[in-house]
Amino acid sequence: MAESGGGGALTRRGLLIGIGAAGGAGAMYAAMGALGLAPSEQDKDFTAPRTGDFTLRGKGSAKVVIIGAGVAGLTAAYELGKAGYDCTLLEARQKAGGRNLTLRGGDRLTELNGPAQDVKFGEGVYFNAGPGRIAPWMVTLDYCRELGVPIETFVNNNAAAYVHTNGSTVRARTARADMYGYVAELLAKATDLGALDRVVSKNDQETLLDFLRRFGDLGPKLEYEGSDRRGFAKFPALDAGTPVAAPGSLHQILAAGTGRAITSDFGYEQATPMFQPVGGMDAIVTKLVEAVGQDRITTGAKVTKITSLADGVEVVHSGGAVKADYCVATLPPHLLAKIPHNLGARVTAALSKPVPAAAGKIGLEYGRRWWEQEDRIYGGVTETDLDITHIWYPSHGYHSERGLLVGYYNTDADAELYAALTPEDRRRRALTQGKKIHGEKYRQDVLASASIAWERQEHIQGGWVRWPAFDSSFTLLQRPAGRVYFAGDWLTHLIAWQAGAMESARGAVTQLHQRVLQSP
Amino acid sequence: MAESGGGGALTRRGLLIGIGAAGGAGAMYAAMGALGLAPSEQDKDFTAPRTGDFTLRGKGSAKVVIIGAGVAGLTAAYELGKAGYDCTLLEARQKAGGRNLTLRGGDRLTELNGPAQDVKFGEGVYFNAGPGRIAPWMVTLDYCRELGVPIETFVNNNAAAYVHTNGSTVRARTARADMYGYVAELLAKATDLGALDRVVSKNDQETLLDFLRRFGDLGPKLEYEGSDRRGFAKFPALDAGTPVAAPGSLHQILAAGTGRAITSDFGYEQATPMFQPVGGMDAIVTKLVEAVGQDRITTGAKVTKITSLADGVEVVHSGGAVKADYCVATLPPHLLAKIPHNLGARVTAALSKPVPAAAGKIGLEYGRRWWEQEDRIYGGVTETDLDITHIWYPSHGYHSERGLLVGYYNTDADAELYAALTPEDRRRRALTQGKKIHGEKYRQDVLASASIAWERQEHIQGGWVRWPAFDSSFTLLQRPAGRVYFAGDWLTHLIAWQAGAMESARGAVTQLHQRVLQSP
Repeated sequence: MAESGGGGALTRRGLLIGIGAAGGAGAMYAAMGALGLAPSEQDKDFTAPRTGDFTLRGKGSAKVVIIGAGVAGLTAAYELGKAGYDCTLLEARQKAGGRNLTLRGGDRLTELNGPAQDVKFGEGVYFNAGPGRIAPWMVTLDYCRELGVPIETFVNNNAAAYVHTNGSTVRARTARADMYGYVAELLAKATDLGALDRVVSKNDQETLLDFLRRFGDLGPKLEYEGSDRRGFAKFPALDAGTPVAAPGSLHQILAAGTGRAITSDFGYEQATPMFQPVGGMDAIVTKLVEAVGQDRITTGAKVTKITSLADGVEVVHSGGAVKADYCVATLPPHLLAKIPHNLGARVTAALSKPVPAAAGKIGLEYGRRWWEQEDRIYGGVTETDLDITHIWYPSHGYHSERGLLVGYYNTDADAELYAALTPEDRRRRALTQGKKIHGEKYRQDVLASASIAWERQEHIQGGWVRWPAFDSSFTLLQRPAGRVYFAGDWLTHLIAWQAGAMESARGAVTQLHQRVLQSP
Repeated sequence: MAESGGGGALTRRGLLIGIGAAGGAGAMYAAMGALGLAPSEQDKDFTAPRTGDFTLRGKGSAKVVIIGAGVAGLTAAYELGKAGYDCTLLEARQKAGGRNLTLRGGDRLTELNGPAQDVKFGEGVYFNAGPGRIAPWMVTLDYCRELGVPIETFVNNNAAAYVHTNGSTVRARTARADMYGYVAELLAKATDLGALDRVVSKNDQETLLDFLRRFGDLGPKLEYEGSDRRGFAKFPALDAGTPVAAPGSLHQILAAGTGRAITSDFGYEQATPMFQPVGGMDAIVTKLVEAVGQDRITTGAKVTKITSLADGVEVVHSGGAVKADYCVATLPPHLLAKIPHNLGARVTAALSKPVPAAAGKIGLEYGRRWWEQEDRIYGGVTETDLDITHIWYPSHGYHSERGLLVGYYNTDADAELYAALTPEDRRRRALTQGKKIHGEKYRQDVLASASIAWERQEHIQGGWVRWPAFDSSFTLLQRPAGRVYFAGDWLTHLIAWQAGAMESARGAVTQLHQRVLQSP
């Protein structure tokens, strides 16, 4: 699934494909065995470096300094470590993980130019302040499997959640049923009027009408008359139940503007179902750190200079300097751009292209899961047109006493607005907004909160970045500059996803390992 | 949410509402306190009997014989037990639970006129042979909470699962994107052609087009040109990925007949997300039996006669006879109809109305979760037009070694077809069908299987029943006949759901308890 990111050099994979073409799969697998390789079930396109690679070629591994112990840096160290590379990680923050940050009671969260927050969540309650969900096709799940991080379903789409737009709140199921009902009715009408006769055959029109009847739950006259899909004030039981109030007119439904909520999981990145590690996203970091070795990571090490030499690299940091054969730099590009280096003006220019984007979240802890008990919302997301954008309900710990909602997860202007506030004011604003949907209990019953403004996190300073275009600057940085490789989600088409950081690390590792194997 | 099922008699709830109307909420809650009641957070419409009810009225509880220890019978015993009723349950089968049946290695499944199956699943593998999923609004979840049955998400809709129709297999995400793309394009075209001018204002047409653009991922000309929502042969990573082959024509998409799969979770019963008990559906039965007391349940007791007397009931069974003050009969109606009784001809006639429906399932165990590793399907359902109807992938134990698929879950003619086969032939047929979707590994790699044909399960003999109409026979049996009350999913509008059995039991309990409290 993932691309190896290899360049023009003959890769092992290319070699094996050559053998496969000449001698068939049997010969290829035999050759892989000889190379100390086993076919990976997880990812057909990436082969981790192995010690056997060196045995065959009669050479040793190399020393690598990795700048940043976020997900990209940890993944690079983990993969290189499989072949015995001697990796050192320099992390400017006080702990590894980068944006993969899970907050729990007892944690202290500092901000650039702002007050620190002491997190006061109860036992067992956590807040994924960074990434919170994983799509099933993403390499992140492969790492969860390989590292033994248990996963569970993350509910990304919930028919029982709400849509709050233009001041009105309806259940997602109701918004969807009404929109689909009217769309189906209108297209059925247009078909009946002959509007499609030139482009759709009569037979196909019949098939289309069958679909529309089902899609919109249309009545016998192919009109939308409401539907039990909209939900009930009292669900069926001993009697047939009491439906919610009848749908509004087409004009009202269109004016409600619920469309964005309806299509929120249509894309390949957020399609249902999604997944999360049991107990918090940082379980991935914990396992990566364990595998890499905590002793390889120096925290609080702020890099001040990167020099690529003929025979190695030198990285100067706040606590000293590290010499190594190669470097993998995984800092966000806008921070990397500020560090003096000798990698050339093109690299400097390329690093300055991506634009950091603001992103923020607040975790709100309650002592009672009223959203389950009263609203019957078990996981999922309420979409809003308020500045909080979303409310996330927890997809775990169902029926337990406490629970944590994500009271906003917003980006860009909305995130900047909240970032400019004190944590106390962010909370107040988020509660005022959420109260419009959930009523007074949302404001009054909150026990504890913690908010993050990623652009105010030291040594990160942004939720993610955006490239104005995936141009030659992007591809330039996907290749090494001297002995320095770059990695991070920002060097992939999976920006803002951990999978991007992992894929990028794999790409850098593959290139670096090829070079080491091919070096004289 | 649930209705109490009370009849014409003055109910406590009616009384309390009266007090509430006269004295306000404060007076109502004071009265509830005096009655030994606390307001239920779970279900505003059902109040479980409590011992305090009797204290107030200076009378004792009664003895109740319950026929059937399925979910309805157990729920009735559980709720009556809260007020100290002396309940005895007569269960014809060898264990409690009825259709809530979870099979594990070591179990033996017998069938009417067929060979027994020795279940050989590995450690930790289970097969929910009966109900498998719970909607969040259902009272079943309240019982899970109250009884301490941990729940987890059941993935009911998976964009990565397949749709197999008319001999072709595509991912659900692809089928959906294509159908929505063309529907959006056609309606946009019709709008542009003026076909809707008489029914939709120009302003609304603009709003509609905005929605259609988003809904169908239309291009700038409002045409469907494919979409990355369809999925990728290689997902984006270091490069933008390789999309799956371009969509077929409208004619081809319509001819593929994928519509049923697209709308499968639109209804209120199966909307995403759904839930399941951790470790198997029978966790509910286990906890109910624990709460009721195993010693109150006589298994292997086949009832042969029910007599309602002036001062009690007599129930004769294969192991003796039980006298009690009241009876709750929870057998399926078509079996109850065959038991001699003195409840009158109208009852006999009413019991004969519901028609049993066939339903069947097969569990297929594999030693490797190839659907996760190769197909990236984590939970969810593949919809087919084959006689297997569905394939369910497990929503739990992700990344573990073994796993169990449901290889068919079918009803009516398809279920009858499989029911008529030996277990070995059912397995062979199911594997031949599933192989059309998943290839040879589906057939070759299966380790163990077990299949159920509910109409061949002794003392159950059907998946569920259907009423030709919810007529006076239905409402007749919602009321007692003499001292005999009826309960079961078949007496609700939630047929085939455990929630129906539970709601019905609550209804019977409420009526019975009122009668006891009001009896002289």
